[in-house]
Amino acid sequence: MVTSHRIREAARLMKGLLIRTPLVFSPTFSSLTGSKVYLKLETLQLAGSFKVRGAAFRIIARREEIGPQGVIAASAGNHAQGVAVAARLAGVPATVVMPVNSSIAKQEAARGYGARVILYGTNLSESIGRAKELSKDGMTFIHPYDDPDVIAGQGTCGLEILEEIPKPDLVVVPVGGGGLISGIATAVKETHPACRIVGVQSARCPAMYRAIKGEPPIDRTCRSIADGIVVKEPGRITLPIIRKYVDDLVLVDDDQIADAMFLLLERKRVVAEGAGAAPLAALLNGGIWHAEGSTIVLVISGGNVDSALLGRVIRQGQMKGGRILRLYAVLEDIPGELAKLLGIIATAQGNILYIHHMRGERDLPVTSIRMEIELETKGKEHGDKIIHALVSAGYSIHPEDDSSPSRPSL
Amino acid sequence: MVTSHRIREAARLMKGLLIRTPLVFSPTFSSLTGSKVYLKLETLQLAGSFKVRGAAFRIIARREEIGPQGVIAASAGNHAQGVAVAARLAGVPATVVMPVNSSIAKQEAARGYGARVILYGTNLSESIGRAKELSKDGMTFIHPYDDPDVIAGQGTCGLEILEEIPKPDLVVVPVGGGGLISGIATAVKETHPACRIVGVQSARCPAMYRAIKGEPPIDRTCRSIADGIVVKEPGRITLPIIRKYVDDLVLVDDDQIADAMFLLLERKRVVAEGAGAAPLAALLNGGIWHAEGSTIVLVISGGNVDSALLGRVIRQGQMKGGRILRLYAVLEDIPGELAKLLGIIATAQGNILYIHHMRGERDLPVTSIRMEIELETKGKEHGDKIIHALVSAGYSIHPEDDSSPSRPSL
Repeated sequence: MVTSHRIREAARLMKGLLIRTPLVFSPTFSSLTGSKVYLKLETLQLAGSFKVRGAAFRIIARREEIGPQGVIAASAGNHAQGVAVAARLAGVPATVVMPVNSSIAKQEAARGYGARVILYGTNLSESIGRAKELSKDGMTFIHPYDDPDVIAGQGTCGLEILEEIPKPDLVVVPVGGGGLISGIATAVKETHPACRIVGVQSARCPAMYRAIKGEPPIDRTCRSIADGIVVKEPGRITLPIIRKYVDDLVLVDDDQIADAMFLLLERKRVVAEGAGAAPLAALLNGGIWHAEGSTIVLVISGGNVDSALLGRVIRQGQMKGGRILRLYAVLEDIPGELAKLLGIIATAQGNILYIHHMRGERDLPVTSIRMEIELETKGKEHGDKIIHALVSAGYSIHPEDDSSPSRPSL
Repeated sequence: MVTSHRIREAARLMKGLLIRTPLVFSPTFSSLTGSKVYLKLETLQLAGSFKVRGAAFRIIARREEIGPQGVIAASAGNHAQGVAVAARLAGVPATVVMPVNSSIAKQEAARGYGARVILYGTNLSESIGRAKELSKDGMTFIHPYDDPDVIAGQGTCGLEILEEIPKPDLVVVPVGGGGLISGIATAVKETHPACRIVGVQSARCPAMYRAIKGEPPIDRTCRSIADGIVVKEPGRITLPIIRKYVDDLVLVDDDQIADAMFLLLERKRVVAEGAGAAPLAALLNGGIWHAEGSTIVLVISGGNVDSALLGRVIRQGQMKGGRILRLYAVLEDIPGELAKLLGIIATAQGNILYIHHMRGERDLPVTSIRMEIELETKGKEHGDKIIHALVSAGYSIHPEDDSSPSRPSL
């Protein structure tokens, strides 16, 4: 059974081994929500997420069960890195089974942490099957969440919160298999029962949410920007802990998560993966009740986001904030016209990202041409100024309409 | 005069007012450099940089000098935000003069922190002139670095380092006007003189470096990705402190800084602005001597980087790491050829970013066409596999050559 006593034991045993992650106040999110918002930055934990806490305690707590072949885990993500780092810290060999198409960066990270990587299966279930098979030959299988010691290890994150803020009103935690929230809820509720604990799931994969609300299980493939919490079946050990200690579960959609990732980056310079940004997404979108002036802790569970995805989140954030402006201009198709147009944009301090000649437009005379222009601006107001300057100079300008993805009819 | 005694007084007076920023161990940078590397994350400070430390102590320490009209500062960047936040914390009005073309995001940030923003001048010198003029009417001018109390405030960052690591071997600090390094060096050297302090400047604006090395001053306009440390004249108060306490100054170029920004993002999920990444750039490029196994603290001074620039840093990092692959393929110009080619790329799990038909190429028969294709890959190895798959299928493929910016002749 998982108890706060066991979690304190975990914290004691692992003292100095892992990073005590910072709990940072956010003036911006506080004023946006009328409360005192703190971020628990598991993004700065070893291997970039909370996962190493559970893996390390599981290994250390039952060290005598682990033979010379060490431990084995299956994961395409944070659990793989967490087990690899934890095993190295404990001085036992680690094997990680990953799907064959898992990112080379993640394979290399696990190898970099000293693990042996086996590529097997086209999806995680097949990798897990293989890992369990291999575990029969003497390796100890480390479950990502359904293990009392893994849960107790994750709970140390909750203890650290209480050490800095003894009486939070609300702690918000992302939920996949439920290991992190089970540990944190046990640590917090058994010490300070008045604190509310709310879990956040992706609306694209609400497995735990459905189990708790008595809805039918998920029967389709899930995909979400918050890949760290895409788990199709609630844990058998975590489910009853969540029933007991978690006050509510809420859902957020991928767009809200992407917005929260961008906000964390822009306003607090925190790189969060989708799962890590889910608590902020839930809080900002009004999904979580809280009294004005409450002390709220958001557990930003991890930061292992692919650079390509991060680049897209930034770009989308810039577009939504009006800092990338796409517009269509009709020009006479004669030398010098484009230079003139660009001169006006330059004077207005717009920075061109690209220009595309749309030749042969059906609705224009053959002597005219439509240009597609993408600009970087300092914001919506600046974009409006640029459009105004162009219109004042006599150009027919149509900004791309946010509400319709298609090119506007001119 | 700035003394460690005064810095301890600053820390005592400001206790609980600002964020005690985290000092985080980095396994990756440690193994890359054969030492124990810690990052002092001023990126997580209020307003996103160390600047609020100095501004807050300057205001609090000589509160009686400040009249009902409050304080005034001129800045296009972190100092503006720092003064705005510090003034609000101290309960005095703040006015910030910014150049007219400063980013709307930064103007809004300063207003958001409660400051009055005046737009004046086309460059920072003109804004500073205006702020000094206005200060004659009763506002107290807060200098960004040439003030003993501002320096003492920045020094609290050094005290925090020593509280967690009492005997570092080396502390690396970015240098613009020199306020931060003067404060940190005073705090560290007066407590633990054996610790080396090294400053880092942008090679594009080495004003302090030249003053220390006895070289002629800078006589041209400077521009660098590390805009936070672009200061053309060394401080009069900071220069002698640096002479006394700083062991060495080194230079890094913009490319090295951009690489360090990308590494901090990818490996440690830390958003650093150019100035903040400069110490890592210097350490990784061999500019700083250190014995193997040394304990090194890199002061990541701030994280206020524009999203557009961050997006570019990510994209360049991806290209350098082979995760964006640009290649040129020659096809027969008949229906179905492109679909066939893309089918091969899809099977090899390459993700198309864009495709461009280059029609009318002089060196090709009219029945052929050259395609420019940009793909996202999982890394160089994966990119090579995709190229191999295409070549095996009989296509003439030329990847873009990193060493030459022009399109390769085929």
